[in-house]
Amino acid sequence: MDLKKLLKPQSVAVVGVSDKPGFGHSAAEGVLDSKIADRVYFVHPRRENYRGKACYPSIRELPEAVDCVVLCTPCGTIPELLEEAGQKGVKAAIIYASGFSEEGTQAGILLEQQIKSIALKYDLAVLGPNCMGIINNIDKINMWGGHTHWDIADTAHGIAIVAQSGFVSAQILNTDFFTISYAVSSGNGNICTLEEFLNFMVEDEDVSVVALYLEGVRNAKSFVAALEKAARKHKPIVILKAGKSKRGAEAAASHTGSLAGSSKTFDGIFRKYGVITTDTFEEFMCTAQTLCVLNGNHPKRNCFSIISFSGGESTVSADVAECEGVEIAELSEKSRENIQKYIPSFASAKNPLDATTALFRDEPRIMGLLKAFDEEPKVAAITVGVNVEKDIDETNLSLCKAMAKAVNAGYVTKPLFAVPSLEGYRHRPTRRILEEAGIPMMSSMGTAFRCLRKISEFAEYRYEERSLTACIPEERKNGDVTALSEFASKEELRKFSIPIPDQVIVRTEEELKKAFGRMRLPVALKINSAEILHKTEAGGVRLNITSVEEALLASRQIHENVKRTMPRASTDGILMQEMAPPGVEIIIGVTNDPQFGPMLLAGLGGIFVELLKDTVLYPAPINKIEAEMILKSLKTYRLLTGYRGSKPCDLDALEDLMVKISEYAALHKDTLKEMDLNPVFVYPKGQGVCVVDALIVKHNG
Amino acid sequence: MDLKKLLKPQSVAVVGVSDKPGFGHSAAEGVLDSKIADRVYFVHPRRENYRGKACYPSIRELPEAVDCVVLCTPCGTIPELLEEAGQKGVKAAIIYASGFSEEGTQAGILLEQQIKSIALKYDLAVLGPNCMGIINNIDKINMWGGHTHWDIADTAHGIAIVAQSGFVSAQILNTDFFTISYAVSSGNGNICTLEEFLNFMVEDEDVSVVALYLEGVRNAKSFVAALEKAARKHKPIVILKAGKSKRGAEAAASHTGSLAGSSKTFDGIFRKYGVITTDTFEEFMCTAQTLCVLNGNHPKRNCFSIISFSGGESTVSADVAECEGVEIAELSEKSRENIQKYIPSFASAKNPLDATTALFRDEPRIMGLLKAFDEEPKVAAITVGVNVEKDIDETNLSLCKAMAKAVNAGYVTKPLFAVPSLEGYRHRPTRRILEEAGIPMMSSMGTAFRCLRKISEFAEYRYEERSLTACIPEERKNGDVTALSEFASKEELRKFSIPIPDQVIVRTEEELKKAFGRMRLPVALKINSAEILHKTEAGGVRLNITSVEEALLASRQIHENVKRTMPRASTDGILMQEMAPPGVEIIIGVTNDPQFGPMLLAGLGGIFVELLKDTVLYPAPINKIEAEMILKSLKTYRLLTGYRGSKPCDLDALEDLMVKISEYAALHKDTLKEMDLNPVFVYPKGQGVCVVDALIVKHNG
Repeated sequence: MDLKKLLKPQSVAVVGVSDKPGFGHSAAEGVLDSKIADRVYFVHPRRENYRGKACYPSIRELPEAVDCVVLCTPCGTIPELLEEAGQKGVKAAIIYASGFSEEGTQAGILLEQQIKSIALKYDLAVLGPNCMGIINNIDKINMWGGHTHWDIADTAHGIAIVAQSGFVSAQILNTDFFTISYAVSSGNGNICTLEEFLNFMVEDEDVSVVALYLEGVRNAKSFVAALEKAARKHKPIVILKAGKSKRGAEAAASHTGSLAGSSKTFDGIFRKYGVITTDTFEEFMCTAQTLCVLNGNHPKRNCFSIISFSGGESTVSADVAECEGVEIAELSEKSRENIQKYIPSFASAKNPLDATTALFRDEPRIMGLLKAFDEEPKVAAITVGVNVEKDIDETNLSLCKAMAKAVNAGYVTKPLFAVPSLEGYRHRPTRRILEEAGIPMMSSMGTAFRCLRKISEFAEYRYEERSLTACIPEERKNGDVTALSEFASKEELRKFSIPIPDQVIVRTEEELKKAFGRMRLPVALKINSAEILHKTEAGGVRLNITSVEEALLASRQIHENVKRTMPRASTDGILMQEMAPPGVEIIIGVTNDPQFGPMLLAGLGGIFVELLKDTVLYPAPINKIEAEMILKSLKTYRLLTGYRGSKPCDLDALEDLMVKISEYAALHKDTLKEMDLNPVFVYPKGQGVCVVDALIVKHNG
Repeated sequence: MDLKKLLKPQSVAVVGVSDKPGFGHSAAEGVLDSKIADRVYFVHPRRENYRGKACYPSIRELPEAVDCVVLCTPCGTIPELLEEAGQKGVKAAIIYASGFSEEGTQAGILLEQQIKSIALKYDLAVLGPNCMGIINNIDKINMWGGHTHWDIADTAHGIAIVAQSGFVSAQILNTDFFTISYAVSSGNGNICTLEEFLNFMVEDEDVSVVALYLEGVRNAKSFVAALEKAARKHKPIVILKAGKSKRGAEAAASHTGSLAGSSKTFDGIFRKYGVITTDTFEEFMCTAQTLCVLNGNHPKRNCFSIISFSGGESTVSADVAECEGVEIAELSEKSRENIQKYIPSFASAKNPLDATTALFRDEPRIMGLLKAFDEEPKVAAITVGVNVEKDIDETNLSLCKAMAKAVNAGYVTKPLFAVPSLEGYRHRPTRRILEEAGIPMMSSMGTAFRCLRKISEFAEYRYEERSLTACIPEERKNGDVTALSEFASKEELRKFSIPIPDQVIVRTEEELKKAFGRMRLPVALKINSAEILHKTEAGGVRLNITSVEEALLASRQIHENVKRTMPRASTDGILMQEMAPPGVEIIIGVTNDPQFGPMLLAGLGGIFVELLKDTVLYPAPINKIEAEMILKSLKTYRLLTGYRGSKPCDLDALEDLMVKISEYAALHKDTLKEMDLNPVFVYPKGQGVCVVDALIVKHNG
């Protein structure tokens, strides 16, 4: 199927035009207003015309096989219409109607399967059902099923919105201050999928930012392929992933029926591919719009200067910036002298700067001031407190003009942002003055600084530092699993050149005596049984054994204990292993996500993992730079770098271990269920690591 | 001085009226527009009239001694005008001009001292200098030095804004959707202080919410007195405390010259008195306005239901609510059946609810739905996703009307909130429809849910559970201090009935032998010297001694070591103490804040205090409920309640200890500098606590 026929049709027929508010009316008005209006047709069995344009009684009787039919009729009529469109040679269709699989009824699911079959038969690119349609501002084609401010100026290099919720996209389009190239409400997404639209938008050169409202992924391979493409092009994807919370996940499941997936898994994937994640609709659209207006002029680093004309505002700006993780640049002596030229003598040249109201309506001084900040090498970007109300006042208008002039005159080459204090509508013409000069007008400062931190992180993202190859399992496994014994798990690791303590299975006292002599002391003895999960409780463990006599005694006791406590468990001798000297406790694990494949888990062990939930999940395979990044993102990272007088840990060896485990997991993506290395001991620098205990669980068959 | 003459004057004279934009013009226009316009006078030495009203050449020549003069002239003219006003019998003055202490120059400081003397001499209530003036919407008096939407309907039971920044208050007043009773820009605050205005607003019955923009406190006693009064009345104070961050504190210092103070100290004080803290201007005003519109109908608990007409919006609402700490109520079977009556069969009666667009423009069903949620006992408050743009659409208008009707018809008695998705201006008439029914229109959902969590916390605040008596030192001490030795510190605690290990100072071997027999073993020996801070490093410590011979040997070694390592330190025998059995390590401390007095510090010891900075600071004295609350607010609280199989700690004894320490600190507020109990061992339930080491530092003289 050809998405272009759907997203960029040259001819369109609206089926079920209507004068009453609703899909049939909105769609008819939209396509009439489109640039292809000469190749727009209307279909209605009982109408002669719509707004003076002839209505055809059926799709069959249309004068041409249009690229796309827009079906505004109820769900029951859809199969027949789609069939007719297919026979006619139509190549795409939009279905607004609900009443399909989203209702969760047998009838709805069957109806959707039926239209999917028709779509496949005729190779039709079908959007929906249960969607709001498409806006294409590049070619000026409006096939939206509702009211929208769609025609807001030249929107090449704008935002492509792809949304798994019609309401969400409608709400964004009701707001007239976003620069939208495309908007696609993907609906149920079973025919043309969300992932296909995402890929299209990542590839389309008219789109500079992709804004994705996501509830769940259906095709992980296609999804990750789009992320990878975007990462390589450094095209920003801004995402609002719904269903992060328990209640949210339940709500998402009942909404589109898609699995919300683990929030930590998605976080890991987004991190790997440099996707910008947001938490609220406001943050989502503010980030997208800001990136769109910047058009590639990103802050080189997270290092900002903040200009305000108020002591109060500049103070709170600094607080909010710090709280949101935005770094404030230190100014050099030279810059301070430079800045002081433009502000009153009683004001002090600091960052954040209170330029005082003395600069109000003084364009040359404001421009000079901006230039002075732009020239400071440490400053990567500049924010200015701008408070434009719906009724513009001269003061703020003059400020905005000065900012735009400063950019246009080349005084400012670094990214410049307007940051208001309170929420509000913002005076539209003033906003345009700023935006035309590449200056984003942001949401109020809490959201603004959060977005700026994320944009800086995106700007610093380098795909070259990541191992981007996707590692998606061929099929989802839900069947039986087999847990390897501790011995077998560790042997599997040893074969993969991963350091484990020396270990051996001894089945007789003779074997024990022989093996004991080759071990470094002390050793531990554990019952070897895949059926005994809690060995200590079963009396199946003896530690710190230093002589062969002790070992023999311990082995007898273990067998006796286990016979008493777990009489039915089948056992296979005793595992004797060297006891590794204690180190800093780390947990490394792998979960094989049913959609996205093996995810590496890392965190500090013991109390930290449970109390602080301080673990990171990240898609395998990883390289060493990623391993370092994962460790650094732990709250407890400082415990690894020589905390309170202890020696710095062997991070190099730990990172090597993580890379290896991730490679093992990637290699076994179709058979591994999970693995758990806990604890891993990390020793001081140069002394390596040791996997003290391990468990590998595999899918059967 | 009488603040009423300043805030509620019956007659006003504006000195320095002008036709040009600026203070002289704004103030003149404002007072002319006031309800006292018949007792408004203008003063100008060279003008005959202003807008047809006669100008008097001087204050002296005014026909009456007005309550308040509004001085719009530059700083140099102020002393003479103030003197003249005093002589005339005027009782209050507003000084807009800057050029005083805020500039940090000698001349500015002197000038401010001069006007302060004049104010004191004539008992003049003076606002400013360096301020924006006063709006009094209760009596309709406008003495604001700038543009403002001041007259926005009946504003009794509105917000009183008291702001240490003219720009901040001006910006709030430029926005026309806040219900303002009073606005006071307190300027330099050296004559009439911020604290006096705060007390006034807390007492004024026309004010339902106090919104305080604070950079620093000058008079801690008066400040805390206002907080206490508000707590007892349960009148909300919403605060934006600027200068929390390092850069912010620097900026605040250079702005009003006030000490920003420790952010943790302020947090503790705000917690004790139930002050609602906010982080951004948007959150600040959204919280204040929401409380104002609720007018006392607060959520009984943090337990919300969320209604939306979109699956996407309801899902993200749940995510955002969880992230911001808003609890979502579980619905009973009965409620779910009840709710299902009002929504389509394919929608499911859940919380958050996606009511679907089928309910759009269906007032009766929306009202029924709201009633169904209101009747669920677990639901304490209801939010509805409302997306009102600047141009109202029929759908949202109908929704807002249905919400208002539901309240007015008594269908909804619990607090109801309108929560938009994106930022925006909000259609003003629709906002009024909601607000008149007591339904706040909030900022977009990130900010909204944060505010709702804080409002719920405020609603649950009970002053009866707090020890409210302020404990402010009589004077700030900055002089010399004396550190008590460990022995003396612990003896001081023992006298206060605080459990410490048995300890004794032994100066001779005879004393040692005699004392040893009375001790429970093992004991520790430590050199006793106020001059040796690091006893272990000096070889001055021996632990785990179990026989008198060992003790004698250890004592000799300690003396030898110390003689070698610290030959010049004067010592006074050896501290012998019983070694307390190990328990969970806690830190208790006291810092005597120079402004606010003794603050109790509590946190888990060892690694947690340093790595996680997981400590709480809270004003002494505290009661047991507060002690419990402090412990529960620690991130590591779970370590005290029986974590990973360990026994639950003796929280009762720990809380008693905290109360006692806080009482000790309160009793010694004028002499104590700090104390540090580290570690305190907490034993299993019923087994008490033990202060193992302690340090008390006192102010000299």
